Amino acid sequence: MELLHGNAIVGQSGGPTAAINATLAGVIRGALDEIAKESGAITRLYGMRNGVDGLLREDIVELDTLFASDADGGCAALDRLTLTPAAGLGSCRRKLPAAGADNEAEVMDKLFAIFAKYDIRYFFYIGGNDSMDTVAKVSAYAEKVGYPIRVMGVPKTIDNDLVGTDHTPGFGSAAKYIAVTMQEILRDTAVYTIPAVTIVEIMGRDAGWLTASAALGRIVNGVEPDLVYLPERPFCYGEFYADLREALNRHPNVVVAVSEGLACADGTLVGAGTQSGAVDAFGHKYLAGTAKALELAVKAEIGCKVRSVELNLPQRCAAHLVSDQDITESLEVGRYAVMAAVSGVSREMMTINRISTEPYAFKVGHEDIFKIANQTKCVPTEFINERGNHVTDECLRYLLPLIKGERYPEYKDGLPCHWILK
Amino acid sequence: MELLHGNAIVGQSGGPTAAINATLAGVIRGALDEIAKESGAITRLYGMRNGVDGLLREDIVELDTLFASDADGGCAALDRLTLTPAAGLGSCRRKLPAAGADNEAEVMDKLFAIFAKYDIRYFFYIGGNDSMDTVAKVSAYAEKVGYPIRVMGVPKTIDNDLVGTDHTPGFGSAAKYIAVTMQEILRDTAVYTIPAVTIVEIMGRDAGWLTASAALGRIVNGVEPDLVYLPERPFCYGEFYADLREALNRHPNVVVAVSEGLACADGTLVGAGTQSGAVDAFGHKYLAGTAKALELAVKAEIGCKVRSVELNLPQRCAAHLVSDQDITESLEVGRYAVMAAVSGVSREMMTINRISTEPYAFKVGHEDIFKIANQTKCVPTEFINERGNHVTDECLRYLLPLIKGERYPEYKDGLPCHWILK
Repeated sequence: MELLHGNAIVGQSGGPTAAINATLAGVIRGALDEIAKESGAITRLYGMRNGVDGLLREDIVELDTLFASDADGGCAALDRLTLTPAAGLGSCRRKLPAAGADNEAEVMDKLFAIFAKYDIRYFFYIGGNDSMDTVAKVSAYAEKVGYPIRVMGVPKTIDNDLVGTDHTPGFGSAAKYIAVTMQEILRDTAVYTIPAVTIVEIMGRDAGWLTASAALGRIVNGVEPDLVYLPERPFCYGEFYADLREALNRHPNVVVAVSEGLACADGTLVGAGTQSGAVDAFGHKYLAGTAKALELAVKAEIGCKVRSVELNLPQRCAAHLVSDQDITESLEVGRYAVMAAVSGVSREMMTINRISTEPYAFKVGHEDIFKIANQTKCVPTEFINERGNHVTDECLRYLLPLIKGERYPEYKDGLPCHWILK
Repeated sequence: MELLHGNAIVGQSGGPTAAINATLAGVIRGALDEIAKESGAITRLYGMRNGVDGLLREDIVELDTLFASDADGGCAALDRLTLTPAAGLGSCRRKLPAAGADNEAEVMDKLFAIFAKYDIRYFFYIGGNDSMDTVAKVSAYAEKVGYPIRVMGVPKTIDNDLVGTDHTPGFGSAAKYIAVTMQEILRDTAVYTIPAVTIVEIMGRDAGWLTASAALGRIVNGVEPDLVYLPERPFCYGEFYADLREALNRHPNVVVAVSEGLACADGTLVGAGTQSGAVDAFGHKYLAGTAKALELAVKAEIGCKVRSVELNLPQRCAAHLVSDQDITESLEVGRYAVMAAVSGVSREMMTINRISTEPYAFKVGHEDIFKIANQTKCVPTEFINERGNHVTDECLRYLLPLIKGERYPEYKDGLPCHWILK
């Protein structure tokens, strides 16, 4: 394969995670290594601010310069970026026009004119499901117009719902935050003796991976929430009340983990009553209030003390408590994306392949982007118990290696040092 | 002062914190040191499960035995307890009968019969404002019936609202969690370019200390929420909307920190519309939903994207992210409480006195319990800006030393190792 010479650009898209900047740091590391080579394929590394949204406005930063001679001092700045939550380059939720759409040529030609202007031959896009849709469209249009560019998707999503990869960068850290916070909530709720139900709402519209992680204590210290409900199973109020009464008979402090995406058999969202009904650019409903809706329902039905806790934004941005395994893998997929692209790979998404679970071992790979975009990987049947109110040991054994290890940011005066793009 | 020989008992009461077990560990350390002395005043250290509630049921554990020959191995178990969130001995919200109440003699005589049965001569009670009320009542009744016992209050509350002490153990760790999480939320909300308001609700019914801590970034890295509203000032919707519009003119991502206890000038709680109206044994209303109520109000008034985040339980139980300064002080007040009681002090609450702010230095002391119980220390006027929508630099300089330093729990398989009483 001939070397494709030119510049590279990287962008971040979709919802923030605690590890998306680790992947960005990996891409920067990979690109700087390539730039440093005497006959390297990559000359410069640009960053698009706010994903393709900013790119279409030519809102571009020179990452190679920024990280080669950063005031924080090169490598130290990369370390700082690695443990900075959310998208350091900014993000967007822009969906590129579909093939054949009225505005396709207008938007895509503008994009490719910018590629040509900056001699962009490598395009790295870090994001979730919707971002892989962007990668697929850029790939397809490049082929259509005959513009030589290597386009790579680099996955990130706390939801772990991308197909073609064992799991996604960013998931392990979110899962660790949830598992640790659940342990702390279990300690907190255990202090009183009066009957009480605590309902903890966890992110995940369609896939229950994060909610399942709340139960990880079972195979570590034997303490876990009493009940766990995933969106993969239709939610039934009657069974829920029966499960609660049974749990309250065993001990006074009942803790329940629920996914934000819980829906009844007829498709009605449990939290529908307390939701705004607003949708984002991809047509996803904003969900908030599943635990709150259940709190009110349980108060009315059972009448005991009930509290709802929505873990909310910290699930995806708590970079002070990341999984070392996740950060290691997030860095690696970024760095390997550059190496793969330089070696000739294009139109692929980076993947993490599990070689073994005990001891855990992984290998970075890549997979055809067209096999991946716009699909959702849900929690499989064998990971959910028969009653549909908890997860199986097999599920927890799959999850456990992904939350292992701690890595802490540098602190100054009690606060973490983050990398902030001026 | 003659040595008072006998046994000691310690209990925890009120809401959990991430540092209340550090204070318990301090009391245990102090008592074990005294027990180890050849002519020590204390023979045994008991722990009451669930505070005076459990004590009245004689639900008592032998802490000296548990920590002298614990399976985890003495000191290691104390270290583990130190960074375990919530009350390791359990808690209660029981209010002892007031002097002259119908059931006073019945309850108090039962309590003192148990003291006599176990030869309890030292009573340590770790808790907040309501727990100091218990300490005062036990002190007063001991004097009334002529039972020789030294009664010490050891403060803890994330709310920092006790008088007589510069600040309270447990506050610094909660403040650190809030300040760090606010930094992470500021990163998270900065990634998009469309106008959006994020409202973060922070604990504190009557005192805004924790909400003020959300702004600590200002004097560390220059990044802080745009607006901060404390319960010390009446909340005005009109001014709030004006403040928001001004902030939205400056940049698209506006972040607001609000206290759960915000109330309008007529006393109506901002969150009243979404609250249950339930009250606890002390007549406190359960508050939840101030940010949610404001989210709905802003959506209706301004119409931009609005999100509410209630930091909820993790504020008080996130032992994975504590202030080293707070843990150091929490241990010290526990240990000194034992030393003070042995040396003859009684009817006092342990205090932390600030010697200097830069560099920070403190000294443990004690203060007459009757001057302390049932009072609330609010954020003073000079700590709030004139407009009432933010805190002053002076406030932040007071707060900063309390969140400094990190101390991490031991982890096993990705989860923190907690001390759990069987």
